[in-house]
Amino acid sequence: MRHILLIGIGAGDPEQLTLQAVKALARADVFFLVDKGQRKQDLAGLRQLILERHAEQPYRQVEVRDPERDRGAAPAAYAGAVDDWRRRRADLYETAMREELAPDGCGAFLVWGDPTLYDSTLAALEEVRERGGVEFDCEVIPGISSVSALAAGHRTGLNQVGRPVQITTGRRLSEGWPEGVDDVVVMLDAHQAFAAYTGTGLWIYWGAYIGTPDEILLSGPLDDALAARIAEVRARARAEKGWIMDTYLLRRDRRDRREDGAPPADRVL
Amino acid sequence: MRHILLIGIGAGDPEQLTLQAVKALARADVFFLVDKGQRKQDLAGLRQLILERHAEQPYRQVEVRDPERDRGAAPAAYAGAVDDWRRRRADLYETAMREELAPDGCGAFLVWGDPTLYDSTLAALEEVRERGGVEFDCEVIPGISSVSALAAGHRTGLNQVGRPVQITTGRRLSEGWPEGVDDVVVMLDAHQAFAAYTGTGLWIYWGAYIGTPDEILLSGPLDDALAARIAEVRARARAEKGWIMDTYLLRRDRRDRREDGAPPADRVL
Repeated sequence: MRHILLIGIGAGDPEQLTLQAVKALARADVFFLVDKGQRKQDLAGLRQLILERHAEQPYRQVEVRDPERDRGAAPAAYAGAVDDWRRRRADLYETAMREELAPDGCGAFLVWGDPTLYDSTLAALEEVRERGGVEFDCEVIPGISSVSALAAGHRTGLNQVGRPVQITTGRRLSEGWPEGVDDVVVMLDAHQAFAAYTGTGLWIYWGAYIGTPDEILLSGPLDDALAARIAEVRARARAEKGWIMDTYLLRRDRRDRREDGAPPADRVL
Repeated sequence: MRHILLIGIGAGDPEQLTLQAVKALARADVFFLVDKGQRKQDLAGLRQLILERHAEQPYRQVEVRDPERDRGAAPAAYAGAVDDWRRRRADLYETAMREELAPDGCGAFLVWGDPTLYDSTLAALEEVRERGGVEFDCEVIPGISSVSALAAGHRTGLNQVGRPVQITTGRRLSEGWPEGVDDVVVMLDAHQAFAAYTGTGLWIYWGAYIGTPDEILLSGPLDDALAARIAEVRARARAEKGWIMDTYLLRRDRRDRREDGAPPADRVL
């Protein structure tokens, strides 16, 4: 049976590979490379470096292109457009797996961050399996997510003692603050949804290109000045590189502020 | 200045160390080993194996014992008891860092999982810094959390497409289902809070000793039978080993079930 490895390769620092991922890279005969839009060039270079260091010859690389999605579909047609897109994507993955991988071969998909958090590769493989056109088993190698790398870079915890943390999207945050949580990590936010929350007593820990040499980290009480500064830094970086990936943690601090108004020490460690 | 490394060493599989963690282990002169209760023996053995493989001689090991916490304090005295415990813990960490680490030395704390998720070491270091008795800077090396390892083991995502996931505690889950989320990861649950949610259409992905050779994974629709089975497996494993660490994901599936009543393919991949 075909064996598929779904390997988390970390948030962007090749040193964030686990030993388990390094071994998995050495097992694969074929690497299926899925490219996504503009960030292609920089990240593909990093991924290539990872393959050169850890994959074992002879190995082959096969490009799998995620189909274009009709993002202009009217809301009423949205579900249909997504279904159609998922079908076309499963077609492409299935064809690649059947035609490029021997029936007893080992293929690998490399996933930035962690394959179980806001990544669609696992879902695409599920769709292929559901269709039954190609038999395979699957192994998932966890990776360092940009969420972990963000918190580590800021040297702060994701949660406060005994309290929950929610990971959500920019779109959902723009619909309102999630109920019942003081710590919210936001992914996939193209529109700086945090800007709607200035002056509400939050702290922000923001990061872009996390783990890479271009990493930018900014943090502090979320007031208008900091929101504007993040928006400006973000726009400039995006214009220079042609793409941006950013993530942030918003925190409502439950502990008493110090009497001198200084932030609690864990905010500045 | 003293340099402190807070190194995430993964959920329990020594192969889950990142290359960055391996390099960090080789940099430390002193390892501060914090032991926590009964799981001490097994986990201390695993940690020792990690040190033997990756630490560079000469290095020293210093045991730091988390102080006993007065868990019997009446609710009214609870905050005071916690404050007192935090103060004593900071005393111990500060003393260890000052007396066992040279003023220009590099010390390391090894943390199971990820240092930024439900771990108290970062908070303890913050308390030491706040007191000002010993100067140091700090670097956090992210690790594979038991949350990532759980989802990878079950080959399922933590979130559904475009939807949030909340990470919380057993105590909070027992107070009610979190608002606005369909995917909830539960940590630190000594009382199987999931048992209150049988028959509500949830799926559970449960795991114990994740990443270790003793790993146990169970999943399925959360009905009384499965809840009872998990409780039984858990009790037996705990009795045999003397300790247990378990984590689970509860999912309310937003997608249509297939007409034949079979679970969606991503549940059985």
